[in-house]
Amino acid sequence: MRKEEYMQLALRLAESVSGQTSPNPPVGSVVVKNGRIAGMAAHLKAGEKHAERLAVEQAGVLAQGAEVYVTLEPCSHYGKTPPCADFLIEKGIKKVYVAARDPNPLVAGKGIEKLKQAGIEVETGICREQAETLYRPFYHFIETKMPFVTIKTAMSADGKIATETHDSKWITSEQARMDVHQLRSRHDAILVGIQTVLHDNPLLTSRLPQSGKNPIRIVLDTHLRILPEAAVINKDAPSVIFCGKEAPIDKEMSLKQMGVEVIRQPHDTLSIREVLLELGKKGILTLLVEGGAEVNGSFLREKAVQQLVLYIAPKVIGGNMAPSPFGGRGIEKMDETFPLVFEKVEQIGPDLKITAAFRKEGPGNVYGDH
Amino acid sequence: MRKEEYMQLALRLAESVSGQTSPNPPVGSVVVKNGRIAGMAAHLKAGEKHAERLAVEQAGVLAQGAEVYVTLEPCSHYGKTPPCADFLIEKGIKKVYVAARDPNPLVAGKGIEKLKQAGIEVETGICREQAETLYRPFYHFIETKMPFVTIKTAMSADGKIATETHDSKWITSEQARMDVHQLRSRHDAILVGIQTVLHDNPLLTSRLPQSGKNPIRIVLDTHLRILPEAAVINKDAPSVIFCGKEAPIDKEMSLKQMGVEVIRQPHDTLSIREVLLELGKKGILTLLVEGGAEVNGSFLREKAVQQLVLYIAPKVIGGNMAPSPFGGRGIEKMDETFPLVFEKVEQIGPDLKITAAFRKEGPGNVYGDH
Repeated sequence: MRKEEYMQLALRLAESVSGQTSPNPPVGSVVVKNGRIAGMAAHLKAGEKHAERLAVEQAGVLAQGAEVYVTLEPCSHYGKTPPCADFLIEKGIKKVYVAARDPNPLVAGKGIEKLKQAGIEVETGICREQAETLYRPFYHFIETKMPFVTIKTAMSADGKIATETHDSKWITSEQARMDVHQLRSRHDAILVGIQTVLHDNPLLTSRLPQSGKNPIRIVLDTHLRILPEAAVINKDAPSVIFCGKEAPIDKEMSLKQMGVEVIRQPHDTLSIREVLLELGKKGILTLLVEGGAEVNGSFLREKAVQQLVLYIAPKVIGGNMAPSPFGGRGIEKMDETFPLVFEKVEQIGPDLKITAAFRKEGPGNVYGDH
Repeated sequence: MRKEEYMQLALRLAESVSGQTSPNPPVGSVVVKNGRIAGMAAHLKAGEKHAERLAVEQAGVLAQGAEVYVTLEPCSHYGKTPPCADFLIEKGIKKVYVAARDPNPLVAGKGIEKLKQAGIEVETGICREQAETLYRPFYHFIETKMPFVTIKTAMSADGKIATETHDSKWITSEQARMDVHQLRSRHDAILVGIQTVLHDNPLLTSRLPQSGKNPIRIVLDTHLRILPEAAVINKDAPSVIFCGKEAPIDKEMSLKQMGVEVIRQPHDTLSIREVLLELGKKGILTLLVEGGAEVNGSFLREKAVQQLVLYIAPKVIGGNMAPSPFGGRGIEKMDETFPLVFEKVEQIGPDLKITAAFRKEGPGNVYGDH
């Protein structure tokens, strides 16, 4: 295999654990000795061993003089585990291939420097683009201390998320709805507005046959209008409710007694930015926002969304008053639109799934540079 | 080459003249003698020679004993030209391959019957699916006497065709807008509402460097509010305006003096069905509807649309009041939606282009059966 193929394999391992390692990023590693794979592993859970350590341990005595492929720069500091750079030096690794640098200021090039100083050859940038896509949420989290936000929405081909009478069951196919469960299981948290809770009473768990992992459920509920029997605050997964300063105290108390975390903001209306900083503090690296229109619109106007996952069903709903994915107040001029880059188009059953990245800069930015 | 490959070639010839043969369908033909192509042609214009006649003439003396591939069943009646079936018999053709049957009751199997009775071997159904897609507008026209209607719309990723203040220049890229000119040149007529004329003052011609063909421009203008200087009634292409019974007579007169055709309907509001029957009488086989939202909504509610061409731009507009492609009154329940089949997804510059067919039957229909 070529070096790109070994790194692809390491990336594949990393992608397979994406969503289960937060607040750590998903990392994969492959150890190669004399053209044969001597070990391979992914970092499975925060606090446990890193990928390159697991893979090198697996290689045993073959580690001496071996080459190590790792999707993210090995760490050089003592965190929950000792530094991997030291371990690779100690085990006599000959050469290390790195896909992406670690933006964490505690690492950021220091891991690579340490290896080089110990006489280990280091080659960086193999499959960099793919790795940087994988680490986009991690980079965002390190840079902003807030989770990487994906808005998921399902609409008809004419951009409607429900009929004029707010009937929305179902826009998309069963296959697409299963795909949403997959999407949920890869996120640390899911967020909805109280309107969605009152109208749809969703469970917001990942109901996949092979997946036990449920994201934390977040509800934005300024006035604490949630009902005690709402499915979203059952015991299947932890729930956090954000409310404003005017929300009734007794409601807060009774929710807390039920085991629900309630976070009160000192404002009349909720600050999306403060919600995200709070979630960041909890180590939530990825947040999936599942609307409705008002909540989506708030995240949009705050420019607090990095990715859009759009399911489009083969049907037309029509009607001036039928709601679209992003509600609330809109823009006036076409040069104020929120620019995207379409990154992937897939067919999921009869529906289309579009994955798009919000571009950081406005329309003046060069297309594709985000 | 295999027989499917010869038929593919004939279909390619037919597709290349799609839009320039109305009210005739586009037809291609290839003549093969001893494993070599002896002639190939497409029907170029209504009233001129049919494809199989041109191809067989090209083959000259080689026609004797040759095989003929033709995308549509050869005609058996005297129209503007003598019957092709007779011509193939006369020229000593050995075998005829047909992709699709001619639904025209004047032909409908009679052409094939005539060939067989003359001892010519006939094989039907080669590349039938592709041919039936090509002939969908023709089949629709023969069946209903109305043009095959395609609604073209350009929207943001969140289903908006303009901002809340109705700014819409431009949603899509220049590449997508060039693609629309291509789409126009393949249609016999383009239709807009008076709102679009007053707001955007479009020219509605096909402005392609290599295309001289402009579709007929149709305006729905119940009260004849159009201005005499509107670009859509200039001399670049014929224009037809439909108005209601209350429209001012003097305005009608002055438009007619300018060379514009005005068709007055005996109703207060325009009947889409009567518009389409009128256009059918003019031999208009394909109609491109370029909205706005109100006109699109009218065609939708009348179930008078067969195809949707949707350009989606990588941007989010947002806002409750920003318009979507289909306006007017909407449906109430999800089981009243207008079902589509997504047939093609293309990337046009940074935009996506989705081609979808409206399904004739409601949701009870088997998916894909349209």
